[in-house]
Amino acid sequence: MLTLYSNQGSGNCYKVRLLLHQLGYEFETREMDVVAGACQSDEFKAINPAGQVPALVLDEGMVLCQSNAILLHFADETQYMAMDYFDKSLTYQWLFWEQYSHEPALAVARYSMHYLGQSEAEDPRLPMLWQKGYQALDVMEKHLCDQDFFVGNRYSIVDIALFAYSHVADQGGFDLAAYPKVSAWIDRVKSQPRWKSMDEI
Amino acid sequence: MLTLYSNQGSGNCYKVRLLLHQLGYEFETREMDVVAGACQSDEFKAINPAGQVPALVLDEGMVLCQSNAILLHFADETQYMAMDYFDKSLTYQWLFWEQYSHEPALAVARYSMHYLGQSEAEDPRLPMLWQKGYQALDVMEKHLCDQDFFVGNRYSIVDIALFAYSHVADQGGFDLAAYPKVSAWIDRVKSQPRWKSMDEI
Repeated sequence: MLTLYSNQGSGNCYKVRLLLHQLGYEFETREMDVVAGACQSDEFKAINPAGQVPALVLDEGMVLCQSNAILLHFADETQYMAMDYFDKSLTYQWLFWEQYSHEPALAVARYSMHYLGQSEAEDPRLPMLWQKGYQALDVMEKHLCDQDFFVGNRYSIVDIALFAYSHVADQGGFDLAAYPKVSAWIDRVKSQPRWKSMDEI
Repeated sequence: MLTLYSNQGSGNCYKVRLLLHQLGYEFETREMDVVAGACQSDEFKAINPAGQVPALVLDEGMVLCQSNAILLHFADETQYMAMDYFDKSLTYQWLFWEQYSHEPALAVARYSMHYLGQSEAEDPRLPMLWQKGYQALDVMEKHLCDQDFFVGNRYSIVDIALFAYSHVADQGGFDLAAYPKVSAWIDRVKSQPRWKSMDEI
């Protein structure tokens, strides 16, 4: 049985849970209290020295970390991964972009506001995070102008990765009213077979 | 002919130039003045809407961005990519870790100090960047305790990716004296066939 060290509210962990569920895998989750510092314990660092969730223990005992690496591992040769050679490279491109230019803005603003309950007065990084986050949403809105999904015009792990923090962007102070294409794509992801919300899995 | 929109001093761009050189590809570079904002021009954003280098225009006119995605694209089925199935997944893991937990500390501190000439008084983020960067170096030092390279015990794109900013860490205020394993690995990378320094390619 796969064992996933996970946090219920983490978008990065949700990505993995959603793909595993859509693929029909069974897995056990070990809930990690990130805010309380559970990921920094010696016990957990023996599993993932980087001290981050998600961390997935495979049946053979090997450990795989980094949400998007886990997505690539399980999506390989399934309908959730691009088949075309160059589309595979574009999949990598968007997954790296998500972790570098999207998640560090949307997820960090959400963590500050939604989990730590901070306002702009308490977290002076928030205006900069909003600026960076809206730039990321601009890139997504433009890309979705003439296609329904991010790569190869079909639902894939790129959509799962970008959906994770986009669909809860409001919890980080973002307003998606000016992003009709992103909003329609969020609804499109939610209508995929076996889709489950962050709270359901 | 491949056309690489690149910046000479950028570690992310150097990764791509080094792999292409080691693989024997010929490519043209278009030097982009990142500090002067060249990546934010409308002309460049027509090539990469995310406004980032490296951006590589392939022979067929298609554009691929994100340094580690470009590494994965060109390393596929070469000696620079792991062959074993799980080692491929670990390759993804380390590449995402580099972009999330390593580059945002080492590269950003280097950019601030080396390119903008800022001190701690001028850039209050520096102490936090040093703390995060040393945590990343700790993870590397530990991993290199019992292996010469990061994945599959041979030189691969993971080493290229991590080398890019590790070997110039001093320019961001980091001292590698306490990292003998990382320092020895840096020398090991420099001794690889067809290795070239950042200034040479």
